[in-house]
Amino acid sequence: MRIDFATEPSRYRHWRLDCAGAVATLTLDVDPAGGLFPGTELKLNSYDLGVDIELADAVTRLRFEHPEVRVVVMRSGKENVFCAGANIGALARASHMHKVNFCKFTNETRLAIEDASENSGQRYLAALGGTAAGGGYELALACDWIMLIDDRRSVVSLPELALLGVLPGTGGLTRLTDKRQVRRDRADLFCATEEGARGQRALDWRLVDEIVTPSSWDEKVAERALALAASSDRPDDAQGVPLPPLTRDIGDDTLTYPHVRVALDRATRRAEITVLGPETVPQTVADIDSADFWPLALARELDDAILHLRFNEPGLGIIVFRSEGNPINVLAIDALLDEARDSWFEREVRLYWKRVLKRIDVTSRSLFTLIEPGSCFAGFLAELVFAADRALMFSGTRAGDRRAAPTLCLSSTNFGDYLMGNGLTRLATRFLGEPDSLERVEKAVGKPVLAEEAEALGLVTASYDEVDWDDEIRLALEERASFSADALTGLEANLRFPGPETMETRIFGRLSAWQNWIFQRPNATGGEGALKRYGTGLRPRFDPERV
Amino acid sequence: MRIDFATEPSRYRHWRLDCAGAVATLTLDVDPAGGLFPGTELKLNSYDLGVDIELADAVTRLRFEHPEVRVVVMRSGKENVFCAGANIGALARASHMHKVNFCKFTNETRLAIEDASENSGQRYLAALGGTAAGGGYELALACDWIMLIDDRRSVVSLPELALLGVLPGTGGLTRLTDKRQVRRDRADLFCATEEGARGQRALDWRLVDEIVTPSSWDEKVAERALALAASSDRPDDAQGVPLPPLTRDIGDDTLTYPHVRVALDRATRRAEITVLGPETVPQTVADIDSADFWPLALARELDDAILHLRFNEPGLGIIVFRSEGNPINVLAIDALLDEARDSWFEREVRLYWKRVLKRIDVTSRSLFTLIEPGSCFAGFLAELVFAADRALMFSGTRAGDRRAAPTLCLSSTNFGDYLMGNGLTRLATRFLGEPDSLERVEKAVGKPVLAEEAEALGLVTASYDEVDWDDEIRLALEERASFSADALTGLEANLRFPGPETMETRIFGRLSAWQNWIFQRPNATGGEGALKRYGTGLRPRFDPERV
Repeated sequence: MRIDFATEPSRYRHWRLDCAGAVATLTLDVDPAGGLFPGTELKLNSYDLGVDIELADAVTRLRFEHPEVRVVVMRSGKENVFCAGANIGALARASHMHKVNFCKFTNETRLAIEDASENSGQRYLAALGGTAAGGGYELALACDWIMLIDDRRSVVSLPELALLGVLPGTGGLTRLTDKRQVRRDRADLFCATEEGARGQRALDWRLVDEIVTPSSWDEKVAERALALAASSDRPDDAQGVPLPPLTRDIGDDTLTYPHVRVALDRATRRAEITVLGPETVPQTVADIDSADFWPLALARELDDAILHLRFNEPGLGIIVFRSEGNPINVLAIDALLDEARDSWFEREVRLYWKRVLKRIDVTSRSLFTLIEPGSCFAGFLAELVFAADRALMFSGTRAGDRRAAPTLCLSSTNFGDYLMGNGLTRLATRFLGEPDSLERVEKAVGKPVLAEEAEALGLVTASYDEVDWDDEIRLALEERASFSADALTGLEANLRFPGPETMETRIFGRLSAWQNWIFQRPNATGGEGALKRYGTGLRPRFDPERV
Repeated sequence: MRIDFATEPSRYRHWRLDCAGAVATLTLDVDPAGGLFPGTELKLNSYDLGVDIELADAVTRLRFEHPEVRVVVMRSGKENVFCAGANIGALARASHMHKVNFCKFTNETRLAIEDASENSGQRYLAALGGTAAGGGYELALACDWIMLIDDRRSVVSLPELALLGVLPGTGGLTRLTDKRQVRRDRADLFCATEEGARGQRALDWRLVDEIVTPSSWDEKVAERALALAASSDRPDDAQGVPLPPLTRDIGDDTLTYPHVRVALDRATRRAEITVLGPETVPQTVADIDSADFWPLALARELDDAILHLRFNEPGLGIIVFRSEGNPINVLAIDALLDEARDSWFEREVRLYWKRVLKRIDVTSRSLFTLIEPGSCFAGFLAELVFAADRALMFSGTRAGDRRAAPTLCLSSTNFGDYLMGNGLTRLATRFLGEPDSLERVEKAVGKPVLAEEAEALGLVTASYDEVDWDDEIRLALEERASFSADALTGLEANLRFPGPETMETRIFGRLSAWQNWIFQRPNATGGEGALKRYGTGLRPRFDPERV
């Protein structure tokens, strides 16, 4: 079954998005019969990937379509329960690949919520009018402020360890320790207590920010929402930019969008993604503020393509990035984005690119970027070069090809706008041990750099001329495809993120790695494991050996 | 087969330790027939746990027994090969538990080498007179300076990915990215190249620090050793402190040392470790500078006990720490250690405790510390309280027990000497989100703190009086034993290390977690996996699916 990440509010089955001036409300009201896979019953507002696809869509739309929204209130449409977390039946039946990618996607969505708050002026308020368990509480942890109804019944809890033999893996442990900085022994107690915490204890342990009696609940939630909205820098009088459905053609071996072509080569285990540069540069503001604005259109298409590959094409272990177009046009649009620092819309486009690039960074496929004649890797698009595990550049021209020797062209945006999860630019990450090289590269801003110079500057891994190019590329890709897929995943997860760690890198690099290990262990997923036996009435049987 | 970590130079089969003034030489000359497990042939200076136990012993002895040594030259006793890394046959046949614990121990030994250099003035020089592959190169990476002979043949390499389908998991990836800050695409190329790098390329890519022609090899190694020695602050005229064999009795259900008692309760899956306080406080320097000095003797015994439990008692998922003795004596010795800032020996004792405590931090067992009447958790010994996942304190006295209500007593050393792998004290880690609490606790230095106050200060998780103590402790420990061993390991690995990351925490938390996951994957350890098929002449068969 092909998993589709494209949706829109009119098609939501599980969320309702209501906007009223500065305050939007996202109401979770899961349709139990609306599971992504047949046979799943999504009880008690538990979620599967389908529910989260809608949430991710809503979070993105709120930023582009609703410039007036300054605070988003997340609440439940069901009595006494906010959200029971990931649906265990669905999780237990899912393949290891699906489990891991499901967790990665839900983590990205929660980080997108935090990004909206930190960078877009859309604050999130978790209004827990009932119990938030497991992934439900982790969703609340991604918000700026957590209100819990104090009705002697509603709790927050992370029962994964006790009930399922796994971790709270959607950032829960990391947000407890790093974001809320809960004392480690209290975090230990909380995570080992199926019942969770309510009322004053939940507040005292910093698990929630506020507890409110039922009689004043609605009033206090409204007050708090307005208080959060007050700190926003969203514009007062802007028009939203609607995001229309993607134009997309999904063939057996191709994925085709207006600005992105994907060729799926299953024999060589490659997805070849070609990004098409802009044909024109907008002349008026009216041309810009629309979903047709090339960098926005491209970001949406590339995001969709990456997610498609993750879930629907796990056998393709290599992504090859190419580009086609006029680098002058790319630079002109890059400059537009750079200059419009005061515009909410251009800010959103830059932030969307930041998120798409981060999604690429944590995609467990080997990334090769090829810079060939006719390519347009310039400005922000050059980030696809620096995101790659290896970047290879064609030196000179091809016989019979009238196109000029390819160039790489940096802009100032490569030095600040598109930070990785580790808080550094890709170039700063690349030259962590070589501050001189970083300075040298900064002097190349605005200049087209040919292959030899790009290699000398350390911007690409290697360059080859026409004599060697085809063989070298073929050999490198064939060799890559011959390695263990798992060892590559571990290697790339380590090498891509040198230097500083942040909550974000710790979620993907530490928490998720442990969770993936646990997902492989018989104590969780074996026939008598906790995840498999949950809900059967049988107790799990554990091998007590500690490794 | 019981694995024993106690050894001494006269019993080494694989290393030779030669001291000549300021320069010591550690020569690796592995006895192929000396494998820890029968049937292992340790060819080409490849190592198993037994080889590393000797190395760890040598690194510790050099610090205590050889105050005159300022630089340690690591070299090979075999022609053309420095070290071929971990023995693959041994690794492939080992259980998952053994693999994981083997890697953890070897990582700790390499970190101990770096600690000797950074804090003890014993610098390490890797003199690679032949190829250093895999774990052999990782050993070199732990040294201050790597010299590679430039003979057109000798290489450094990390062939794990290509040959074995696993990672260079003894810190190799992390030291490439964080310590040597090799550019990420070069690191990727290097790790995907079975042949490794030699000569100028190895130097240009910062994989080694110096390349030397064979004709000047001995001379240059000697010069470099002296240059490294020059930066040392080791004493000129001190007497070494010999470390005699441990006094130890290993019974079926007990481990008994002069200052440490371990009761093994397999029914409840607990190891109960009781640390015995000092009976006397040394009056003269002569009493101090010996292996009988209580904190040194205790550290050695505790270190041995923890390692014994890790490898020989994997079924015991909980370690319960207790202490017995006079806290006044502990504080007096803690003050001696604190005051003797200029003494190389007291420095070594403090650093040894730092390492033992860090070994406890990364031990994958649930840690409970119980503070009961008669206990002596004071000064540095109180770190066992803050290292615990939970610390529980008895409030008041027991009927019929004439001992006073237990106290906890901090000293200034709790605020700086015993840093965790994350670079913070355990108290700073504990109160990461509560700077006020940390300040409040600092005011309690030197004062005996009773249970209620300890709980109010946040120093312990909970306190119970006689009425509840036995039941509460029993219930907490029984509950802990009922959980999935793997989920607990993942939980503890996340909750124990909030806040900043260092190369050290990244090795244990990120690199090792991914390696553990890979060790569970059929592509590595399945019947057709790369680790299993290595050396059989058969090619591994890989499932190409990326997860």
